[in-house]
Amino acid sequence: MSLLRRYLPILTWGAEYSGKTFTNDLIVAVIVTVMLIPQSLAYALLAGLPVQVGLFASMAPLLLYAVFGTSRALAVGPVAVASLMTAAAIAPLAAQGSPEYLGAAIALALVSGLMLIAMGLLRLGFLANFLSHPVVSGFITASGLQIAAGQLGPVLGIRAEGETFVEIVHSLAKEIGGTNAWTAAVGFGALAFLYWSRSRLKPLLLRAGLSERVAGTIAKVGPAVALVVTTVVVWALGLAGHGVKIVGEVPKGLPRLALPPFDVALWTKLLVPALLISIIGYVESISVALTLAAKRRQRVDPDQELIALGASNVGAALSGGFPVTGGLARSVVNYEAGAETPAAGAFTAVGIALVTLFLTPLLFFLPKATLAATIVVAVLSLVDFGALKHTWDYSRADFAAMVATILVTLVEGVEAGLLVGVGLSIFLHLYATSRPHIAVVGQIPGTTSFRNVARHAVVTDSEILSLRVDESLYFPNSRYIEDRINEAVAASPTIRHVILECPAVNAIDTSALESLEAINQRLKDGGITFHLSEVKGPVMDRLKRSHFLHELTGNVHLSQYEAVASINPELARRTRDAERVPASAKP
Amino acid sequence: MSLLRRYLPILTWGAEYSGKTFTNDLIVAVIVTVMLIPQSLAYALLAGLPVQVGLFASMAPLLLYAVFGTSRALAVGPVAVASLMTAAAIAPLAAQGSPEYLGAAIALALVSGLMLIAMGLLRLGFLANFLSHPVVSGFITASGLQIAAGQLGPVLGIRAEGETFVEIVHSLAKEIGGTNAWTAAVGFGALAFLYWSRSRLKPLLLRAGLSERVAGTIAKVGPAVALVVTTVVVWALGLAGHGVKIVGEVPKGLPRLALPPFDVALWTKLLVPALLISIIGYVESISVALTLAAKRRQRVDPDQELIALGASNVGAALSGGFPVTGGLARSVVNYEAGAETPAAGAFTAVGIALVTLFLTPLLFFLPKATLAATIVVAVLSLVDFGALKHTWDYSRADFAAMVATILVTLVEGVEAGLLVGVGLSIFLHLYATSRPHIAVVGQIPGTTSFRNVARHAVVTDSEILSLRVDESLYFPNSRYIEDRINEAVAASPTIRHVILECPAVNAIDTSALESLEAINQRLKDGGITFHLSEVKGPVMDRLKRSHFLHELTGNVHLSQYEAVASINPELARRTRDAERVPASAKP
Repeated sequence: MSLLRRYLPILTWGAEYSGKTFTNDLIVAVIVTVMLIPQSLAYALLAGLPVQVGLFASMAPLLLYAVFGTSRALAVGPVAVASLMTAAAIAPLAAQGSPEYLGAAIALALVSGLMLIAMGLLRLGFLANFLSHPVVSGFITASGLQIAAGQLGPVLGIRAEGETFVEIVHSLAKEIGGTNAWTAAVGFGALAFLYWSRSRLKPLLLRAGLSERVAGTIAKVGPAVALVVTTVVVWALGLAGHGVKIVGEVPKGLPRLALPPFDVALWTKLLVPALLISIIGYVESISVALTLAAKRRQRVDPDQELIALGASNVGAALSGGFPVTGGLARSVVNYEAGAETPAAGAFTAVGIALVTLFLTPLLFFLPKATLAATIVVAVLSLVDFGALKHTWDYSRADFAAMVATILVTLVEGVEAGLLVGVGLSIFLHLYATSRPHIAVVGQIPGTTSFRNVARHAVVTDSEILSLRVDESLYFPNSRYIEDRINEAVAASPTIRHVILECPAVNAIDTSALESLEAINQRLKDGGITFHLSEVKGPVMDRLKRSHFLHELTGNVHLSQYEAVASINPELARRTRDAERVPASAKP
Repeated sequence: MSLLRRYLPILTWGAEYSGKTFTNDLIVAVIVTVMLIPQSLAYALLAGLPVQVGLFASMAPLLLYAVFGTSRALAVGPVAVASLMTAAAIAPLAAQGSPEYLGAAIALALVSGLMLIAMGLLRLGFLANFLSHPVVSGFITASGLQIAAGQLGPVLGIRAEGETFVEIVHSLAKEIGGTNAWTAAVGFGALAFLYWSRSRLKPLLLRAGLSERVAGTIAKVGPAVALVVTTVVVWALGLAGHGVKIVGEVPKGLPRLALPPFDVALWTKLLVPALLISIIGYVESISVALTLAAKRRQRVDPDQELIALGASNVGAALSGGFPVTGGLARSVVNYEAGAETPAAGAFTAVGIALVTLFLTPLLFFLPKATLAATIVVAVLSLVDFGALKHTWDYSRADFAAMVATILVTLVEGVEAGLLVGVGLSIFLHLYATSRPHIAVVGQIPGTTSFRNVARHAVVTDSEILSLRVDESLYFPNSRYIEDRINEAVAASPTIRHVILECPAVNAIDTSALESLEAINQRLKDGGITFHLSEVKGPVMDRLKRSHFLHELTGNVHLSQYEAVASINPELARRTRDAERVPASAKP
């Protein structure tokens, strides 16, 4: 039963479901439905798919997330970055508009969903942690720029094609002369209205006396208003006859349950893109879920979220949809409107189903420029150049990874950008740990503490070299440490004892163990004893399983003070009992 | 001048060169030449090349190493593993025996040489450290098995083909019925003699009264003796007429200076194999050089060694040779015979040149089975299954990387094996650091020290949660640490203060900084203050460049004791002044 409850969170919250909660969730669902309609349509177009596929992807996934999800506020569905990645993954495989293209999008959702479920069952959620914050931030910024640039085409009524930001900008520059004035008027009108409703409407409503929550929610339905107004304008003025592209006939009715094409060759080609979409989608989604849950002290289970997202994507695939994940904007609306349980999401799915059943004829005159404007406004809020500045101030390595992610994404595309970002951030970490900080330490008079001789006024013994390594000892740095010890010993002919102080050594791997053995042997050949101090419990447990401790010419001491005192007790004690020198004594 | 001396070590040792050193180096050169002849011929065949290419690769590279090298004992030339990797790299590009095959081998030496020089000038020697000891050991063992299996074909007089161990064994099993009895007699005769001379000859000579050094050196020329004896036998008995394959006509004369084919498409295909050969060759070579140098307290400069090996390979390419590196066996002979300067290597090159000029007709009746036997005996000494046992005892992660390297190399080939090994060892390291050890700590009575509550009898305060993280805080573990702190706080409703003790935190990257900010914010929302203690100097310097310290609800304390004392001074002092409990007091 507890296992069933773990994998089916609906059993937990469903048991406590009440009439009041129902009313509340229903109101939330109406608001989110109104917000979700333009997004569903727009992101389907962004992915290169017919608009109704966006509506399909906003039904089954929401129902399934309500059953499997642990977040009470997360709203799943089509999102900008995953839609862009879908287009990037499928474009090389099939011509846009063909049945093969749609089939590949559906297969992508299925493969991604199965991967997410497998990762959840195998508790592989930690894989998402290999995407560092700067890489995710850089990737989202670059994707936002690429999406916005791509949507300028429909806003202007020109074709802007290309698979990367650079290609799209090039294409825009070439085609800009063919701008359709009517389309541009509708598009920029929608853009201006959306910017205004996003930034100015809420303060206006607040001044008009509305509550914070109501004003915020009304401001968020701007896209739906833009959609209605521009549709009416296009219909009334007959702008379709003046070259304004409209959505046209949208097939009515609910999606049919269908299996995506079983094509092993296709699925194999989709493995890498599906993995990247899964991980990026999961990272976006879990960040939103954790942030919203923390505000109300609710719990979100990261591994169960993988299963819930996976089920949502499998659901999307089986009902003719494309990859979905938890979206930031609509989850915040969900949360602020007061969603109390995942049932709000299920009711939203019903709302979308009603639209699909009865309102699609109203979409006939909807201009594509409006949908493009909706996307531009939504994605430009993802672009965060401020993060570049903060990251530069704090860490040059993280800044390098971020810039590389942005540039490669803009020039080479989303998959290359993400892979280079992850690879570079891992490499830069390994590089940093491959040249660890090694300090020569001495005893602070009046204490049993040892500190860096370069930073403090300390007492040292010309026969004893005490070194502190500020890093775990493992293969990328084992030879570096060997070299530094060899050099230090070669530079001081009086040395008879070397002590390695290990308070920051969290692990010693096989390569480092062999290096320690080599150091011990070489020092022994030179008549120098080798000691360790402050070795941590788990590290010591492991060293005991090797021959190293038998071969070690010196001893392993509990503290650096004990190590020094075992060699020169007189000096160690005299220094300990001396008067303490103020920290600033060193010139 | 000092820059010139750095890049041309010959200027340093050349200035002190004396007549006595000359005589000594000359004697060493004679011994190494005798040893190098069979190896050069055999490894050329192993790489799928004509035997004289092996001789060519043993002239210019040795001269150039003498100019640029910093090791006084390292002997460069064709080696087993690099020859195998050469064959693996070129086999997909050209048919063995064709001029294109030879051209590709020469181009491979050139690309590898240029890479090594570039790595040396850019001081990228640390890249070699990303090959952990278990991966190198596993790779060498698997390569040794593959080479030995492949040479069983010539020893038996059958064709054993394949690019992996598995394919070769399969091919051997199929062809074994076609064994040529005469060839097998010569081959197994040579094998038996070589094993005997390697394991039994030296003790015999020692008992006969020879010195350790002379006996060791004589035992090492066994392959040359086997070569002479089997050549005479094959000639005298006319075994070539009975199906024993012989080397046949070897073109006389020195190699001509020539540029390898300038073919960008070919060079591009050779980039990855050249990088792998360069790094593996460098790792082998530098290990040998460092070990021998340490025995006589000489210095080896790892970055200059890259340049020297690079120059050697460029030299090999320009004189029609194939990739070379420093070989273990012949360097040890060089060292034990008493090589005093790299001039010994230059004299060896002259020796090989004399052989190429005058003695190639003597190689006509040399049976290929003898050369194959030479290789089998040499490479089986590289196979080290004992390392599997030691690694298993010490570290399961390193054992997994080693086994994966061996299996993938045997099944998929050398390049795949090496790449999987490196990738897996990096992944396993990241995985380990992504779930660091986090201890709840308390104060040891009678001290100001804090230790794990699970291991020691310590005093804690129900309002204070003190946690020690035994790892740097960075992207793979930042969310894990967030989760653990959230859980720990959720589990103890009495907590008002959380202190993170950081003596083992060597770095905090941007992702971890954002996690710390999130932790601080969530604790603040719950009315809990967040403190840090024992933050290292470099980490603190960096934190000061962010906004975190302004937002932190608590303080950063110099020691864990001061942190606790700032919250509950009375308890901290009472515990410090209490009687110390023996370490074993905890039940």
